[in-house]
Amino acid sequence: MATGSTVLDANAFNPATAAGLDPETADLARRRAALLGPAYRLFYKQPVHVVRGEGARLFDPQGNAYLDVYNNVASVGHCNPRVVAAVQQQVAQLNTHTRYLHGAILDYAEQLLATLPPPLDRAMFMCTGSEANDLAVRVAQAYTHHKGVIITREAYHGNTDLVSGLSPALGAAQPLGDGVRTVPAPDAYRLEPGQDLGRVFAGHVQAAIDSLASDGLGVAALLVDSAFSSDGVHPDPAGFLAPAVAAVRAAGGVLIADEVQPGFTRTGATFWGFMRHGLVPELVTMGKPMGNGIPISALVAQAEVLDAFATKLPYFNTFGGNPVSIAAAQAVLDEIQQTGLQRHVCEVGAEFLRALRDVAGRYDVIGDVRGAGLYLGVEIVQPGGGKLPDAARALAIVDGLRARRVLTSVCGAGGNVLKLRPPLVFGLPEMDWFMTEFEAVLQGLA
Amino acid sequence: MATGSTVLDANAFNPATAAGLDPETADLARRRAALLGPAYRLFYKQPVHVVRGEGARLFDPQGNAYLDVYNNVASVGHCNPRVVAAVQQQVAQLNTHTRYLHGAILDYAEQLLATLPPPLDRAMFMCTGSEANDLAVRVAQAYTHHKGVIITREAYHGNTDLVSGLSPALGAAQPLGDGVRTVPAPDAYRLEPGQDLGRVFAGHVQAAIDSLASDGLGVAALLVDSAFSSDGVHPDPAGFLAPAVAAVRAAGGVLIADEVQPGFTRTGATFWGFMRHGLVPELVTMGKPMGNGIPISALVAQAEVLDAFATKLPYFNTFGGNPVSIAAAQAVLDEIQQTGLQRHVCEVGAEFLRALRDVAGRYDVIGDVRGAGLYLGVEIVQPGGGKLPDAARALAIVDGLRARRVLTSVCGAGGNVLKLRPPLVFGLPEMDWFMTEFEAVLQGLA
Repeated sequence: MATGSTVLDANAFNPATAAGLDPETADLARRRAALLGPAYRLFYKQPVHVVRGEGARLFDPQGNAYLDVYNNVASVGHCNPRVVAAVQQQVAQLNTHTRYLHGAILDYAEQLLATLPPPLDRAMFMCTGSEANDLAVRVAQAYTHHKGVIITREAYHGNTDLVSGLSPALGAAQPLGDGVRTVPAPDAYRLEPGQDLGRVFAGHVQAAIDSLASDGLGVAALLVDSAFSSDGVHPDPAGFLAPAVAAVRAAGGVLIADEVQPGFTRTGATFWGFMRHGLVPELVTMGKPMGNGIPISALVAQAEVLDAFATKLPYFNTFGGNPVSIAAAQAVLDEIQQTGLQRHVCEVGAEFLRALRDVAGRYDVIGDVRGAGLYLGVEIVQPGGGKLPDAARALAIVDGLRARRVLTSVCGAGGNVLKLRPPLVFGLPEMDWFMTEFEAVLQGLA
Repeated sequence: MATGSTVLDANAFNPATAAGLDPETADLARRRAALLGPAYRLFYKQPVHVVRGEGARLFDPQGNAYLDVYNNVASVGHCNPRVVAAVQQQVAQLNTHTRYLHGAILDYAEQLLATLPPPLDRAMFMCTGSEANDLAVRVAQAYTHHKGVIITREAYHGNTDLVSGLSPALGAAQPLGDGVRTVPAPDAYRLEPGQDLGRVFAGHVQAAIDSLASDGLGVAALLVDSAFSSDGVHPDPAGFLAPAVAAVRAAGGVLIADEVQPGFTRTGATFWGFMRHGLVPELVTMGKPMGNGIPISALVAQAEVLDAFATKLPYFNTFGGNPVSIAAAQAVLDEIQQTGLQRHVCEVGAEFLRALRDVAGRYDVIGDVRGAGLYLGVEIVQPGGGKLPDAARALAIVDGLRARRVLTSVCGAGGNVLKLRPPLVFGLPEMDWFMTEFEAVLQGLA
């Protein structure tokens, strides 16, 4: 088993080194390995067994509560009552495909598009973010008549054949696709003094465009998650993406904003992550929090761009846009818009950032704290000021938090960035809970 | 809009030629075209607007019942009470991903694997049949170290970049992938006298293997739906697939059984379609009816084959195997196993075949009636014995049935095969209802 060989694996349970599991956990882990095989990764040295969720908490069979500082799917809260009611009602009434007329998908599409800049006027529905990114790349290639795609070095865009080739985070065993070029993550923490992040990042993107050109390829798209989640969380300074996008457009390419992680107010100040950068993408993909866990994803597009593909080829996704998934998505959107969730994310996110930076001032293993809204990264480094990633210590913190029933994980090329992205209903009491346990773990490691 | 340019489009609504729609339908169709774009296809000259489902019936806003002779997703019946209750219960309790331990996915995996021959001992869960086929092809390539894939000429295996290239049914605008070879469908109706279907089909497959070899490529897999659904429904004679599979294995390839359509007792005599052919595939994909409409799919594999991929690469599917989808799938499996559904499918399917063949004897536009279980094909041909497809008449029958509130569609390279595959709870009263309306439509066209 290749456990631990890639950053995606960094926090994986490794049965070979497991010890001290209670009999029930050991039995579940053993059955799991036998039935599901080695591609599946469990989190933590001591895996967590969950049976119930509520708000920002998960519960094990003994009724112990775990603070969820990790899950960005159950974004409006585990078992959000509005979503639960919507799914319960719709599943008892109708669940079929999109080859019949159904009003709810149209009402939802209208309301979803209303959250986006006006040129983005068409929505197509799938089941997973992978499917949305897979289609977006094909649409970009059809529209531009180019093949090349530019991504960041630790990007993760999904699990189909096409988008696995756009996901270096899967590790060295995953070859990149033809015409794929990677650029370094926009790492403001490691910027040289006097450098401008937007200019540096645009320089790397221009070099990728030039490399494609020298191989006789044009650039179809820059495909980025504006929170640069798997690259280690790099949201700031807002606006830095604009020069890179300008370079791509000058070369005839488009911007695909992968909003699977930053979308739906995750980053606080704006509904979509790309808006923080003052951009209007040609194509936007979304997934994870869209239905609070009920599978649904979407590709939103400018009509002219989409139609270059869609007038030539039919696209049908059996479960895509089914009434139950749409009901869940509508309830999520209603919840965001009717409960002031975005303001809550801004307020709690700002407090969380302040609290983490306060702790960082007291522990030199914390090299950097950054984030937007409720997507935060805490970079664990070797003491001494060299900004060298300390993956082992980051993992020890993650496992220390898990032992205290606080769920997080790591990201970044160095596997050393604590990834804090709780359900958006996470509030100040939960933040205090986290900070108490976090500081206890840091003290224990000191 | 390319409506009607491919077989998948044959039954598509065409707004350019639409007339006589009531204002509400016209408005929904107009909003749909604007919001969702041209890749979406509506069924029928007069699209159907559905708001409720029950058993083998769908209902429009006015409460009119439509007989569903088309939908193979709501296989245990629209709004099956057991599935509805399971989803309602689970969505209120927990819905998260597979990086925590959860017992239900393991219980379901064990019971699912118990329906398959023992060498198939591992299950991985995704959201769509497309994702399952996409992964299956990559696993086959990793295991065999070959690239080539053999499919039938009118195959449809899904909508990702990889499997779109394995789906010639999408039309001429969809290029086949590198290393893809097509073979003619196993058409027993058009076999020359004295020919053996198994030998003929194996000959085509061997020619494809030879063609790959002459291009320096090996064969990774024969990828087939054993009901040959989009090719026009070709299930018989049971066993004919075996020589082709032997040829593929002799060349170092494997069999991927795409059970998205024939699986879960659709073909009656066996739980899985490949079992009718006495085969044990290396890889099996499944989807559509698995969760009765709640998105879930799976790849089942022999461990040795899967592990060639899975020990090297992690695979994570955010919504794959989530507790709500697993609850729906468990309820579907329970429903099949505890209600004698498979015997019902055999009995009703046999009666349906008899009734259709009886009508065929009285209408020379029916060239052939074939099927297994509740997957039946009725081939509409030009009179005169030449077996020439009559797509226009087949479409007229489909639209005539729709006008009488009976839902079907067409398939096959000629777009002339009526595709009859109702929810499996379809019984003898529903069959009588269908036969009455079918004969009325045939008389009206005579």
